[in-house]
Amino acid sequence: MIIQLTSTVTTPEKETILQQVKDLGYKHTEVTTQRGHYIIGIGKAEFDIRRLGHLKGIADIHRVSDDYKLVSRKWKVGKTVVDLGDGVVIGDGSLAVMAGPCSIENEAQVQGVIEHLVGNGVRIMRGGVFKPRSSPYAFRGLGIDGLKMWYAQARKAGIKIISEVMQVSQIAEMHDYVDVFQVGARNTQNFNLLDELGKVDKAVMIKRGISGTIEELLYSAEYVFAAGNEKLILCERGIRTYEKASRNTMDINAIPILKEKTHLPVVADPSHGIGIREFVAPVALATVMAGADGVIYETHQEPEKAASDGQQTLDFEESARLIGQLRRAHALLREF
Amino acid sequence: MIIQLTSTVTTPEKETILQQVKDLGYKHTEVTTQRGHYIIGIGKAEFDIRRLGHLKGIADIHRVSDDYKLVSRKWKVGKTVVDLGDGVVIGDGSLAVMAGPCSIENEAQVQGVIEHLVGNGVRIMRGGVFKPRSSPYAFRGLGIDGLKMWYAQARKAGIKIISEVMQVSQIAEMHDYVDVFQVGARNTQNFNLLDELGKVDKAVMIKRGISGTIEELLYSAEYVFAAGNEKLILCERGIRTYEKASRNTMDINAIPILKEKTHLPVVADPSHGIGIREFVAPVALATVMAGADGVIYETHQEPEKAASDGQQTLDFEESARLIGQLRRAHALLREF
Amino acid sequence: MIIQLTSTVTTPEKETILQQVKDLGYKHTEVTTQRGHYIIGIGKAEFDIRRLGHLKGIADIHRVSDDYKLVSRKWKVGKTVVDLGDGVVIGDGSLAVMAGPCSIENEAQVQGVIEHLVGNGVRIMRGGVFKPRSSPYAFRGLGIDGLKMWYAQARKAGIKIISEVMQVSQIAEMHDYVDVFQVGARNTQNFNLLDELGKVDKAVMIKRGISGTIEELLYSAEYVFAAGNEKLILCERGIRTYEKASRNTMDINAIPILKEKTHLPVVADPSHGIGIREFVAPVALATVMAGADGVIYETHQEPEKAASDGQQTLDFEESARLIGQLRRAHALLREF
Amino acid sequence: MIIQLTSTVTTPEKETILQQVKDLGYKHTEVTTQRGHYIIGIGKAEFDIRRLGHLKGIADIHRVSDDYKLVSRKWKVGKTVVDLGDGVVIGDGSLAVMAGPCSIENEAQVQGVIEHLVGNGVRIMRGGVFKPRSSPYAFRGLGIDGLKMWYAQARKAGIKIISEVMQVSQIAEMHDYVDVFQVGARNTQNFNLLDELGKVDKAVMIKRGISGTIEELLYSAEYVFAAGNEKLILCERGIRTYEKASRNTMDINAIPILKEKTHLPVVADPSHGIGIREFVAPVALATVMAGADGVIYETHQEPEKAASDGQQTLDFEESARLIGQLRRAHALLREF
Repeated sequence: MIIQLTSTVTTPEKETILQQVKDLGYKHTEVTTQRGHYIIGIGKAEFDIRRLGHLKGIADIHRVSDDYKLVSRKWKVGKTVVDLGDGVVIGDGSLAVMAGPCSIENEAQVQGVIEHLVGNGVRIMRGGVFKPRSSPYAFRGLGIDGLKMWYAQARKAGIKIISEVMQVSQIAEMHDYVDVFQVGARNTQNFNLLDELGKVDKAVMIKRGISGTIEELLYSAEYVFAAGNEKLILCERGIRTYEKASRNTMDINAIPILKEKTHLPVVADPSHGIGIREFVAPVALATVMAGADGVIYETHQEPEKAASDGQQTLDFEESARLIGQLRRAHALLREF
Repeated sequence: MIIQLTSTVTTPEKETILQQVKDLGYKHTEVTTQRGHYIIGIGKAEFDIRRLGHLKGIADIHRVSDDYKLVSRKWKVGKTVVDLGDGVVIGDGSLAVMAGPCSIENEAQVQGVIEHLVGNGVRIMRGGVFKPRSSPYAFRGLGIDGLKMWYAQARKAGIKIISEVMQVSQIAEMHDYVDVFQVGARNTQNFNLLDELGKVDKAVMIKRGISGTIEELLYSAEYVFAAGNEKLILCERGIRTYEKASRNTMDINAIPILKEKTHLPVVADPSHGIGIREFVAPVALATVMAGADGVIYETHQEPEKAASDGQQTLDFEESARLIGQLRRAHALLREF
Repeated sequence: MIIQLTSTVTTPEKETILQQVKDLGYKHTEVTTQRGHYIIGIGKAEFDIRRLGHLKGIADIHRVSDDYKLVSRKWKVGKTVVDLGDGVVIGDGSLAVMAGPCSIENEAQVQGVIEHLVGNGVRIMRGGVFKPRSSPYAFRGLGIDGLKMWYAQARKAGIKIISEVMQVSQIAEMHDYVDVFQVGARNTQNFNLLDELGKVDKAVMIKRGISGTIEELLYSAEYVFAAGNEKLILCERGIRTYEKASRNTMDINAIPILKEKTHLPVVADPSHGIGIREFVAPVALATVMAGADGVIYETHQEPEKAASDGQQTLDFEESARLIGQLRRAHALLREF
Repeated sequence: MIIQLTSTVTTPEKETILQQVKDLGYKHTEVTTQRGHYIIGIGKAEFDIRRLGHLKGIADIHRVSDDYKLVSRKWKVGKTVVDLGDGVVIGDGSLAVMAGPCSIENEAQVQGVIEHLVGNGVRIMRGGVFKPRSSPYAFRGLGIDGLKMWYAQARKAGIKIISEVMQVSQIAEMHDYVDVFQVGARNTQNFNLLDELGKVDKAVMIKRGISGTIEELLYSAEYVFAAGNEKLILCERGIRTYEKASRNTMDINAIPILKEKTHLPVVADPSHGIGIREFVAPVALATVMAGADGVIYETHQEPEKAASDGQQTLDFEESARLIGQLRRAHALLREF
């Protein structure tokens, strides 16, 4: 059960509501986000919803049988729109394109990517400064100084930044220099990180776990929402299967399924989804046709020399061609 | 190594060639198909290809390092086109649409489906008369009589038939009443069946195994080709993974990968790929955008009453809408 | 619902029973095996079992809610014992050891293996004469002549034979020369083959599919049983997963789960289960400790020179040591 | 390359060594643990090992081609023994038994479990105070106060504590109250957590990721070791597969494979590995027979009333019986 409170609810009104919720045999959690104030009732009691509906301070009540509630479309049919400011919006029916290198490497690289994006009308740049690496001996990214350098250039060009946060202590450090915190596939169930990202008023994009289920992804989003942050984006990036001809198996099914289950925007990462440069474009196009609200992929001026993920990174010519195709595919889909 | 022989090769010429192949340390297999006569050399010897190239009776020689050879694009760059006659062609750059019920049930059903297909310009009808079922107590299909009834109606309407063959003894029975033999996902590695289908001059569509690799699918096609039948089509139909929100996980990656590895046409089965009626359309569109040469899906006048697979079957209205969208998506892709 | 008929049931009695079954809203199948005569009722009707119980000709009635019925322990609590004759028995509480080469290669090889088995008190020899191979160019086995040669030697030594049957036409060919027909992992859902094996009075061992579920394996056994053959053995041989450090992932869980769900004997194949020679022994011991009724593994006088599967094949010294350990582990388990 | 330095190495000697390592084209990392001082050379240069071997300050040099180095058995053949004090040791050839509830619930529960363990000679108790839960609305554990209560009782009884740490900030909080930090399956690749656990002089047990590879588990251990902590234990706890008859698929293969690849102790968690109470015992016995150095499982006085994981938790009677069987199986294995 989700009870949306009015913005003018008084403390005594809220207490009356909570008492009723308890009397009905529900446990409850209060959630206050940028956009609303909710009481989540956890329990299975059957009752006459009118016993609550007449109380003062209640804007609306919804029964939600899913175990994830706040992110469910059973409660909120309208799509969540994530506004990054300056006219950059995800989930409003337009196609969000996010591109950039796997790792931020140096100033010249960043400058080159920004020029490429600006030249192609792309407003969001991806890039890693804290890199999760299987081996402790691999390159782990430029860190916070790299992020500040990147930020300085991106702001001048009107480009928004999405970058991975790996641990709680990085949230404050990164806060002023990112527009979207990315939660990586190895951290999808890092619940403390999710809790803390719920306390921040910045957008958060959660990648599906390496072998996470669709339901687990929704639960992870519920963590952030329930801790106070509604500015959420989900990302399908391929799952681990027995098939070794590709890096991961892009779960194209997840896109229509997620869009049916949740009101949050759903974007796709074809670079990790297939992991082979020459096939990134067809997979990207497929995800748009399956209904993705956006695409995030890797591009670099010289993929062969990229510090990481070169094998799945497009050069600027390939990237420019793909952007044009994605937009035409998206325009066609909107006609359907 | 693949040696293509000329159509006028003489017996003594061939013997000379085979002797040379043996002298080079290769084992060999002779393959005669509808379209050519080949000698396949199995081995790893390094040699000067000119030692063979000058021999009489040889049209061309190709080194092929893949373990599947005849189906590899390393040998044959041009796409294989499968012609079913009467202008119905798969793999020529057009989009092949194949639709119909999971099971053939009765005359009225068949008639209804045919009218739907004809009305929407679809020329190939799918349907099962021999149904592989996990449980021995489930409906196993109408059998050969159902096929004959179906054939009679389809011929009148100019519709081609694709239907699953489950065992060697059915090949002869079914031969005159099908245009494409379908090998189901449980029979992808039924090697005896593949061998026998190699001896038939009818098209064969091989579905990927329930958890088959892309490579295994190519090997299975190699069996049919090496036994004499080049009229081959591959079908991606989803794989078994841990994710249970969909029936299977449609491996969208497999489409561009297969098209790069083989010259055979590649079609997609979104009905089994996701298994949920309301999501068949977005997945179908995605496969076209990823480059599929065709789409095969389930439709029925009353999906709720279908003898099998109703939960993933489109009604005629949904089917008609999808056909139009698929064609527009395919037309867009051809512009890229 | 399973109705066991008495051995003296008369035709009129059976007709009365069948009429009652129909009246209760059940579809039915009659099953006659080597050991009994059953009527299987398919349906979900709730009824008072006493309406049937008093009828003449009925030995016993069982409700079975599983979709597989005849192989379920809900019907038959006592374990099925498969008797191969001459004192060789599987499923009676003893540990069945089956060993031998992947492929039967020649007379000297067979003779060597038989001596090794006899010397270690092993009574069942495995070996392939029809080999399923991914590639059409690989060695496909010696065929029926190899089987006859093997049979001649095995009979003299009192050794029983288990060998894979790949297609219906081989059943008659092989019948007189095998003691157990093995259904391989690629044929677990070759339903026509299962149906035909149900008509034979020889033991059948069904391997779990390459990525088959436990439930599918039980259904496959139900096919054979429902077609008339109760002499069934199930075999866990590892499943396909994302993990590539081993050939397959031995599903140790399947052993206690299968033994709880079915009355059929369950054996384990550690050779395919892990696929790495040096680790076959610990995995074999683990399966015995988990409750397997037997173990089937690959051994060869010179694994390095084996025609197939050499990398997972034990030499005779390793094999002899393992046999001793397996028996001691099994003896310990019986004390628990 | 791993260079072990002598305990008396001087700063100038070390500088000379590092200069040589650089000259050979290697990047290097210095590692100082409780037990030694190492230089790790990362690179692929081929060189004459004698160019380094004669330098002062070097105790030993090893080429290690694996990407994980410090945890590899190619460097250190002898097994790592983790000593928890008071005679409680893991990895010395004895069988370590660790048991306890999923969640620490209250004083009476803890007292009951401790009595059960003491009565059966078990010295290590498991239990969660910080619980990772898919849903934000589920019970998340008693927290640090629960740990202190538990610690007070365990110390009196001579029982060691293993408990899960979920984030960096908990390390300091928990430090004085645990004997082994457990890294859970959702945190196996939480690299910041691993880094910080490398700075602590307490044993760490790393569980394999929910769908982690064996190699990834070794890399995760390398993180902790490379950050300074050699007191490491690995834990196989089942992986996620398509099979839904069990909670996870216990990867029995991982046990002999890990023991061959690493010198670290390997324990098994049959409770999560199968997830079904009645089958925990056979799976536990199997893992011991496969060579596990220990077993960790869930037990509770009243599994039906446990706050979490009741369906896979043994009662004390089952637990006592299992402990006896595990010891007998382990004793038998040591005779082989």
